[in-house]
Amino acid sequence: VSLLDEIREQPAALTRQLEASDAPLERLAARLRDEPVEVVVIAARGTSDHAAVYGQYLLGVRNGLVVGLAAPSITSLYGASPRAARALVVGISQSGASPDIVGVLADARRQGAPTLAITNDPTSPLAAAAESVVDLAAGPERAVAATKTYTTSLLALVRLSLALRPPSPEEHAQVQRLPEAAAAALESAAAAEAAARDLATADRCVVLGRGFEYATAREWALKIKELARVFADPYSAADFLHGPIAIVEAGVPVLAVAPAGRAASGLAEILERLRADGAEDLVLSDEPALLALGRRSLALPPGVPEWLRPIVSIVPGQLFAYHLAIARGLDPEAPRGLAKVTRTM
Amino acid sequence: VSLLDEIREQPAALTRQLEASDAPLERLAARLRDEPVEVVVIAARGTSDHAAVYGQYLLGVRNGLVVGLAAPSITSLYGASPRAARALVVGISQSGASPDIVGVLADARRQGAPTLAITNDPTSPLAAAAESVVDLAAGPERAVAATKTYTTSLLALVRLSLALRPPSPEEHAQVQRLPEAAAAALESAAAAEAAARDLATADRCVVLGRGFEYATAREWALKIKELARVFADPYSAADFLHGPIAIVEAGVPVLAVAPAGRAASGLAEILERLRADGAEDLVLSDEPALLALGRRSLALPPGVPEWLRPIVSIVPGQLFAYHLAIARGLDPEAPRGLAKVTRTM
Repeated sequence: VSLLDEIREQPAALTRQLEASDAPLERLAARLRDEPVEVVVIAARGTSDHAAVYGQYLLGVRNGLVVGLAAPSITSLYGASPRAARALVVGISQSGASPDIVGVLADARRQGAPTLAITNDPTSPLAAAAESVVDLAAGPERAVAATKTYTTSLLALVRLSLALRPPSPEEHAQVQRLPEAAAAALESAAAAEAAARDLATADRCVVLGRGFEYATAREWALKIKELARVFADPYSAADFLHGPIAIVEAGVPVLAVAPAGRAASGLAEILERLRADGAEDLVLSDEPALLALGRRSLALPPGVPEWLRPIVSIVPGQLFAYHLAIARGLDPEAPRGLAKVTRTM
Repeated sequence: VSLLDEIREQPAALTRQLEASDAPLERLAARLRDEPVEVVVIAARGTSDHAAVYGQYLLGVRNGLVVGLAAPSITSLYGASPRAARALVVGISQSGASPDIVGVLADARRQGAPTLAITNDPTSPLAAAAESVVDLAAGPERAVAATKTYTTSLLALVRLSLALRPPSPEEHAQVQRLPEAAAAALESAAAAEAAARDLATADRCVVLGRGFEYATAREWALKIKELARVFADPYSAADFLHGPIAIVEAGVPVLAVAPAGRAASGLAEILERLRADGAEDLVLSDEPALLALGRRSLALPPGVPEWLRPIVSIVPGQLFAYHLAIARGLDPEAPRGLAKVTRTM
């Protein structure tokens, strides 16, 4: 099984996640109806932290919940035990083996807080530490770079959101169509390969996104760094104008996650300014007008609503990172310096 | 007034912040004794967001509070209004003019939540939106890159922490010594200039920190990007081993914020591994054993406790970024593409 196989397996993995038992989430939702929480805290590192960023938007916008991202070192390094009894504490970890994430959940559960583990290993220490467990059901992920465990983590968060506030019939149908949309996104492979060949000489780039797609920008940048050893710097399009735009000189490509939606007009403005500066770019979008603003583009399948689209929009990004590694003479199956499970204490 | 003047003015600005009236924070603390909050939410962007990261550690470790960093776009882009009545909502903005940060505070105050503005302009919209206001008292900041408003924002968060839990006599004395320690940190100027000349040809670098000093790593990287147009990529030392270590090849310098404290042993391990890989580095520390691990080093004044040290440790970083800009033939007083006030909607 190769990285490319795992990227391609995502529609099937998403289907498995959709078909997984709702019982753990229903029990959690029942407890939260009896003991409402004021806030959600998500603990995660690396790729899973990008799933947490998506969770912040999803649960904030759809469920009206304040979501904070935990700094796991507060517990693991400093031994502090922030009061969490009125919080839902969620840990996300592919392996479920990271001691600092386990520590955050164990500490919260000791305080009586509801806890949820989202992990690809339901026999892991993280699953044992949590009151509720969602199994990613992604199947074994053997490639060192996480792909299908990322998209299934996003979908697990969607299922949490739906358990806390049941979907409308339209929302239900939108969620059910996700595997099909992910399959359609895989059709960008040839365009991703061509763009990667075209940008292979750049050893740095900027990746922009905003709102729901900020998570995609961060995860895309991480995949590019891990696989292709290119210095990819992710920014919220909002923060970008606060300073980092200074580093975009001619020759530093800007990769923009710029689909239709609330963030589109701000991104269009940035793309126009970058074009005037002569910057190289690659636009990932489902909106013809935004695709047309880029020198290069990667088309997303149309019709995926903004709140679910990050599950689909990372797919062409994964393919681009894979092909960028190859175009740069690297082996994406054996990235340098990466261990699959990192045991941050 | 130049950027260098503003960097040098920090001991005086910190003294002004220490001498500012405690009345607003005492009123806030009194309200929180009557109506305890479950969580603190901090909304900020750019440099102020790095102050928020420090606040997450400070209020988590010293006050046992769960602190979440807000995603301001949830309100400004999506019009969502996460429930915040049981949260203390803090906005940090030098200018107090960023509409999305103002929006988060206005929304929280409408819900009855206690709100605090930390701003250098007590007549700003942010100050008007908040129930309580701490004036940074940094004096006018004319340089485009924020320096003294960053360190005074950290100190304002310290004063919030002290108002919520009064200091021991030892803690009080440690806080009072901060301006003197910042003055001692300014003595690193010559070493910072030499290191900057030495590293001037690199157009990318990695900046590492962890725990309390993760904020310093992020702010240092931003200053390097803004002023010297070098691609500086900040990481928590914990996340670094999850993948980004792959991009450190020979020739990409690693700047490590590695003072004494809980994060020191993890950073020492990374520095030893990087040294074996032949990476270039620059170590910022108050600990001789850690300074000795680097090819180049910047010494911090000794005796500043871990919970306060980020107020001091950024100072040599600011000087390094200033001199790196000059060494690269750029004008740090007029960085390209930066506007002092960015009005993110």
